[in-house]
Amino acid sequence: MRTTGDRATLKVVLLGCGVVGAAVYRLLAEQSADLSARAGAALEVVGVAVRDPGRPRTVTVPPDLLTTDAGALVTRPGVDIVIELMGGIEPARTLLLAALNAGKSVVTANKALLASHSAELHEAARRNNADIYYEAAVAGAIPLLRPLRESLAGDEVRRVLGIVNGTTNYILDKMDTSGADFGAALTEAQDLGYAEKDDPGTDVEGYDAAAKAAILASIAFHTEVTAADVYREGITQVTAADIASARTLGCVVKLLAICERSHGGVSARVYPAMIPREHPLAAVRGAYNAVFVEAESAGRLMFYGAGAGGQPTASAVLGDIVTVVRNRLAGLRGPDASTYAELPLVPIGDALTRYYVQLDVADRPGVLAPIADAFAQHGVSIKAMRQEGRGDDANLLIVTHTAREDDLAQTVASLSAMTAVRKVASVMRVEAEDDE
Amino acid sequence: MRTTGDRATLKVVLLGCGVVGAAVYRLLAEQSADLSARAGAALEVVGVAVRDPGRPRTVTVPPDLLTTDAGALVTRPGVDIVIELMGGIEPARTLLLAALNAGKSVVTANKALLASHSAELHEAARRNNADIYYEAAVAGAIPLLRPLRESLAGDEVRRVLGIVNGTTNYILDKMDTSGADFGAALTEAQDLGYAEKDDPGTDVEGYDAAAKAAILASIAFHTEVTAADVYREGITQVTAADIASARTLGCVVKLLAICERSHGGVSARVYPAMIPREHPLAAVRGAYNAVFVEAESAGRLMFYGAGAGGQPTASAVLGDIVTVVRNRLAGLRGPDASTYAELPLVPIGDALTRYYVQLDVADRPGVLAPIADAFAQHGVSIKAMRQEGRGDDANLLIVTHTAREDDLAQTVASLSAMTAVRKVASVMRVEAEDDE
Repeated sequence: MRTTGDRATLKVVLLGCGVVGAAVYRLLAEQSADLSARAGAALEVVGVAVRDPGRPRTVTVPPDLLTTDAGALVTRPGVDIVIELMGGIEPARTLLLAALNAGKSVVTANKALLASHSAELHEAARRNNADIYYEAAVAGAIPLLRPLRESLAGDEVRRVLGIVNGTTNYILDKMDTSGADFGAALTEAQDLGYAEKDDPGTDVEGYDAAAKAAILASIAFHTEVTAADVYREGITQVTAADIASARTLGCVVKLLAICERSHGGVSARVYPAMIPREHPLAAVRGAYNAVFVEAESAGRLMFYGAGAGGQPTASAVLGDIVTVVRNRLAGLRGPDASTYAELPLVPIGDALTRYYVQLDVADRPGVLAPIADAFAQHGVSIKAMRQEGRGDDANLLIVTHTAREDDLAQTVASLSAMTAVRKVASVMRVEAEDDE
Repeated sequence: MRTTGDRATLKVVLLGCGVVGAAVYRLLAEQSADLSARAGAALEVVGVAVRDPGRPRTVTVPPDLLTTDAGALVTRPGVDIVIELMGGIEPARTLLLAALNAGKSVVTANKALLASHSAELHEAARRNNADIYYEAAVAGAIPLLRPLRESLAGDEVRRVLGIVNGTTNYILDKMDTSGADFGAALTEAQDLGYAEKDDPGTDVEGYDAAAKAAILASIAFHTEVTAADVYREGITQVTAADIASARTLGCVVKLLAICERSHGGVSARVYPAMIPREHPLAAVRGAYNAVFVEAESAGRLMFYGAGAGGQPTASAVLGDIVTVVRNRLAGLRGPDASTYAELPLVPIGDALTRYYVQLDVADRPGVLAPIADAFAQHGVSIKAMRQEGRGDDANLLIVTHTAREDDLAQTVASLSAMTAVRKVASVMRVEAEDDE
């Protein structure tokens, strides 16, 4: 830290200058007077680490600031804050540990890293009296981690239920409005730049949402949860027929991240599920994100906004930078990630959910009884059943009450094995509906 | 502060033990282990100031804690935190200034006080190295002030648009769904306890919403805005016919608090306005609150939740208490209310809005031209006009493009004076719609 005139100047380095990095660099320059008035110190960018200094960028960075040697940057004497926007586990992990060990504070948008190495990063921050902030890692611009950690610190969070991946939301939305199948909707999302051309798997297989679920669960329940702890199903198996079935039930299909207190532990899972069309999450379109939080005293809260994109993500990064500067000027650090509760993780088999099951059955007397019996034998209560005849076949639509995942899965297995059941045409979870 | 075993204990006093006070008292006891793990210190309630110690309460407070002498409580040596939940300007103002001057930190839900005496309270806090937090003062349980002040500290807020008063939202919702007029809907709200029996004016005249608008505008625009600076119209003049007109236009009527950057200054206003039925704010029902925030980089964010009630408000109070405890243990205070921008206030006449105007006119040739001319002469552009004949009369529905309030008001005055216009049947602002 250096003082010029009556206000200190803090030195900042950026790791990565892609879409988000460029937006942060530009805003740091454009907003410098406002930022300095709000944070209490001026900010000076003294280095930007990139892979290829010659690559054209959307922002003009003076050539003498660009470097490929990120390792030297994060330990450079005089640097106060390291802003990491390169993504991925390595080399980000090694660089941020080095930065923290050198006493720098860290702001990052790296969800994969935080979802897998949160404990060691927080430990390094604590040991070195430095900060680590990462609001931008979950739900882009939406203020979510700070409200969970601070505003709700006096409440008991029961459940976090959210749409936290814009790519899959865009694809499912497209399938719903146009009747397209998954492949066609993915191609369109890729053409429009909403999904990666080379490797869409991080999004469509649910890895991105699972990382965010881990971060949310950790903060909401004061318990360390990693991405590996999160049960995960992507949307690649969702068919146009599933979407049509959802429509019949007055539902839409969304990829949900669900973190909840259950059986005295924490259940964290990501999968596509039907939600009622009148639920506020059903109205979340395209690349937007929305997160429901249910807390003991506060009741139901919802946070909504842009979940990705350079500018929105940069907004969250800059908010964190202002906080880190205020903390540094005061000679202190923000509240630690609290993991005192150390709640056990609930296996997916014990999670409580509801199922929608669609069966092609023979349309003859005596078919319904053994099917109803299969549900009853596994302790799964049927909420609604509807039969539609079509010549020799009948189409049976069943919605269950809340039950254990394992019991529901075993019910479906029993149904598949029955001769009266020609085909289990569709199976999907139903969430966000109050069960009576 | 006193240390027992390995954890400090902070002493807390409560001013007021009504619905919110009782909820806070109960949660402080019930959640004490969790609160102490999260805040880093145990909390001990050492006094509760009430008007009538003999009055029955929903929570059991030991008689020796109850006192009518709030003045002695707020300066009592050893007390760390004063929680004010009595409401109203005096004696709350005098008591909180005394508390701050005695070095106590303050948590309050008092919107009227913060909207009128923010500057002197923050100044007293700063001078005495104490905190003042008041998340519960606006939108109950919804984390809103902390996100605005901290998460968006690196962004430029352009607009805050919200439903921040549950009573008026309940009444307008009732009028919309049942066709009831204002009087009948108010009586029902009073019978259900949503509106005050004796003095519903604070809510229905918009004073409560205006106080919240002042607090929101101050934080969003880094400028001191008081309740007196907020233009205010309540909902007492809203008729069943207005609600029906809104319905014809695909809109609902909501009491909105609007704070925006405009003409290089800040416009803060509260009035009933039509918003499109598909806008997310239109779906906010009953006593719920929701606030839209539009920021330069973040884009559009929405915060939604319970806007009032003992438990939800207590959730926000407890979140602030945890923050104050963490700050006190670290020997510091939270970020100050920032008023560096000192933006001028835009008079209501210069505010930009759109109008819906309904006219009863004579149904004869040549009527439309002078009416259209009245709009043109005041520089107000018409977006849509529809005429419905009824015998000798015609009903003319006009929606304008965005224009200055003064120009719109003068247009309406000109229309009223025209002989062809039998009656200006309805005039209402239209908000939350993108203008083309």
